[in-house]
Amino acid sequence: MKRDLISMDDLTLEDIKEFLQLAATVEELPAGEKMTKLVGKILMVMFFEPSTRTRLSFESAMCRLGGSVIGFNHQMATSVAKGESFIDTIHTVENYADIMVIRHPREGTGRLASETSRIPVINAGDGTNQHPSQTLLDLYTIQKFFGGIEGLKIAFVGDLKYSRTVHSLIRALMKFKDQDFLLVSPDTLRLPEYLKRAEKQDTVRFHETASLKEAVSWGDLIYMTRIQKERFPDLVEYEKVKDSYCIDEKMLEHAPECLRVLHPLPRVNEISYSVDRTTYAGYFEQVGNGLIMRQAILLQLLGVAI
Amino acid sequence: MKRDLISMDDLTLEDIKEFLQLAATVEELPAGEKMTKLVGKILMVMFFEPSTRTRLSFESAMCRLGGSVIGFNHQMATSVAKGESFIDTIHTVENYADIMVIRHPREGTGRLASETSRIPVINAGDGTNQHPSQTLLDLYTIQKFFGGIEGLKIAFVGDLKYSRTVHSLIRALMKFKDQDFLLVSPDTLRLPEYLKRAEKQDTVRFHETASLKEAVSWGDLIYMTRIQKERFPDLVEYEKVKDSYCIDEKMLEHAPECLRVLHPLPRVNEISYSVDRTTYAGYFEQVGNGLIMRQAILLQLLGVAI
Amino acid sequence: MKRDLISMDDLTLEDIKEFLQLAATVEELPAGEKMTKLVGKILMVMFFEPSTRTRLSFESAMCRLGGSVIGFNHQMATSVAKGESFIDTIHTVENYADIMVIRHPREGTGRLASETSRIPVINAGDGTNQHPSQTLLDLYTIQKFFGGIEGLKIAFVGDLKYSRTVHSLIRALMKFKDQDFLLVSPDTLRLPEYLKRAEKQDTVRFHETASLKEAVSWGDLIYMTRIQKERFPDLVEYEKVKDSYCIDEKMLEHAPECLRVLHPLPRVNEISYSVDRTTYAGYFEQVGNGLIMRQAILLQLLGVAI
Repeated sequence: MKRDLISMDDLTLEDIKEFLQLAATVEELPAGEKMTKLVGKILMVMFFEPSTRTRLSFESAMCRLGGSVIGFNHQMATSVAKGESFIDTIHTVENYADIMVIRHPREGTGRLASETSRIPVINAGDGTNQHPSQTLLDLYTIQKFFGGIEGLKIAFVGDLKYSRTVHSLIRALMKFKDQDFLLVSPDTLRLPEYLKRAEKQDTVRFHETASLKEAVSWGDLIYMTRIQKERFPDLVEYEKVKDSYCIDEKMLEHAPECLRVLHPLPRVNEISYSVDRTTYAGYFEQVGNGLIMRQAILLQLLGVAI
Repeated sequence: MKRDLISMDDLTLEDIKEFLQLAATVEELPAGEKMTKLVGKILMVMFFEPSTRTRLSFESAMCRLGGSVIGFNHQMATSVAKGESFIDTIHTVENYADIMVIRHPREGTGRLASETSRIPVINAGDGTNQHPSQTLLDLYTIQKFFGGIEGLKIAFVGDLKYSRTVHSLIRALMKFKDQDFLLVSPDTLRLPEYLKRAEKQDTVRFHETASLKEAVSWGDLIYMTRIQKERFPDLVEYEKVKDSYCIDEKMLEHAPECLRVLHPLPRVNEISYSVDRTTYAGYFEQVGNGLIMRQAILLQLLGVAI
Repeated sequence: MKRDLISMDDLTLEDIKEFLQLAATVEELPAGEKMTKLVGKILMVMFFEPSTRTRLSFESAMCRLGGSVIGFNHQMATSVAKGESFIDTIHTVENYADIMVIRHPREGTGRLASETSRIPVINAGDGTNQHPSQTLLDLYTIQKFFGGIEGLKIAFVGDLKYSRTVHSLIRALMKFKDQDFLLVSPDTLRLPEYLKRAEKQDTVRFHETASLKEAVSWGDLIYMTRIQKERFPDLVEYEKVKDSYCIDEKMLEHAPECLRVLHPLPRVNEISYSVDRTTYAGYFEQVGNGLIMRQAILLQLLGVAI
């Protein structure tokens, strides 16, 4: 059966563990051996909206495995401009590649592509909906830093109401046992209640605070997100909170040595550049882990053993 | 001597048969062996106007043969913007690749490129003029469906006055013997008379009708094209005919089993989605055949034997 | 230590000679052997402003060595649009590739990238500042035409005040011994005085003339540049000089046989097309030499022996 990666909700705990294990194996593979894995395979990159970082990460992953990349990176796919349906576009491009990665501004596009296409589809973001490879790379980063994903204390900071990245990561983490989450956000950007409900919720505990300082001395991990001005109906409200959710070197002075700060990037000012030089900074390693996880995803969906 | 593919009119019947034979051989080639054919060769993709579908088809073909692709896909090539002549652009990029494929809004550009360039040139559309790889893939599709190209009954439907694809295909088919063509179009979009004249016209017979229904029960193949609103000086005229040249599953109820419907794509509404599920739909296989024919073209122009 | 190519001023005479020697070796290498040199390596092409010619030259060079290319070619890198700093962009993309080539409208960007990045950086133009691979390919072209770089008589024609290419080439040539330079420009576009001062200036002699005709019968080499209208505050002044710095076949009638005309391209009208057919035209060979020199640069910065 054809495999796709459309939503984290499609994955069982076992599926996720399989991706994490595969990524670890990929990371150990010598570059020369890796280069032989996808020789002759073509990745089709269909970015209906630009996302340079995600696109380059997938393209690099494909090249590292010896495969080729073709595709487009424009808002205006020309055939679409001529009135072609999305389904016809999929039925056309599936002839040109072995696997496709899609980013599209409209929710549900990833699912539609997977149901239409004969070849595996990776959803690299459909509107505000899903971007599962980001969540898998976040999980892989956490596992690498702490040797596992269970029994951790993780603080989420910033816009917890709208951040797709945070929602998806929390839902995925809740599939693992024994978690403590500290939610750190302005009152207007709190995590939606429905996200706190889950099967195993007895082993997952939510805590809340409005103080970033508390988060620093509390746990193992701080997951930062950007607070976007446009989320605030009242700009006075925005001005009040905007600097409360920024972290700098000074705030980390009394942090436990094992603490790591992650961020899906790009950052604006929510993590000071002074943090980059500390051992707490985990966000650029996170980028490197993304490359490894995306190699694992390509191999897994193409059914290539390593 | 350097080989180019600029216009179907440059090709003899023997040339066309050679491309068809080569495509058939390419189709049988194991993927692994194919991948060795153009290793170290570079295809330069010069799309002065966008055409995602054609571009990706050529890029995929090159990758499948183990070659590399570079190029541009923008209306504004920067050197051209600085006032550089087209001839200088060709004399520059011929240093960077082994073969080039050009699409340009201006008629004659393909020919000019071929006369200027040291490396083989493929014309992928110059204005409304020529797009020979489309015609070759159409011929290959016909041959695959019917085991040969002679003795067929082919209906052409829609805009027969302006469709470059139809004109080029009819002229190519007329080089083969014993054809019956049924022309199905609104009165204002009839096939130009000059296209009906040919050397072997005694073995080619033209029929006309305004009824698509007649075409369905008449022949072996229906070649659909889009009727474009902008072709009608009088919109009242357009509204009258626009739905008469659309085909759906119901119309095909009494069609002979061997009938196939082709379309150069993209379609808008001239073929209903309900047709996709029937055995009559040949247009997506046509896309796949395009990939094979373009591999054959690359191999042929580069003089690489298989 | 990581190697970068940011400015010609960073290179000693020995460094330059090493690049020239490496290019000569690259040129002799059989295509098949060359293709094995950078297998598994990825070049990241970061063009924050378009420059199709330079980009394609680097991409072709990478492909010829068996490597892969990813990158972007747009003014709007999306993460930058989201407010990301240039440094964060570098810290991200350095995970995706083995070497990067950057073009950016702002001066100093190449240097900043090299100081930030873990992987080698090639500056392919930062504003009006530096574009060292152009200078290296110019030197390689001169060496190929004349068997060496010392003891030559070189005329520079056109806009000597603003041309980055001319400034960089003159400074590089002054590191070699025993040169005669003839400067041919309108009075308002003369070479800045500071460029004439150099360590070895006793072996370098500057001459000046306003007559292109004199240059033709004077030396070994004419290096043409474009005179841009926008450099003239007074358009009357522009109209007076614009045709005085154009060369055609007729002017070359009494030129010495060994004379060669170079140009960084694109040209507009400063070299007549009639010159292309003569043995004097060196500018298209110059393009081909650029491809070879860029292969040498990639190999050198990646520390791959050949």
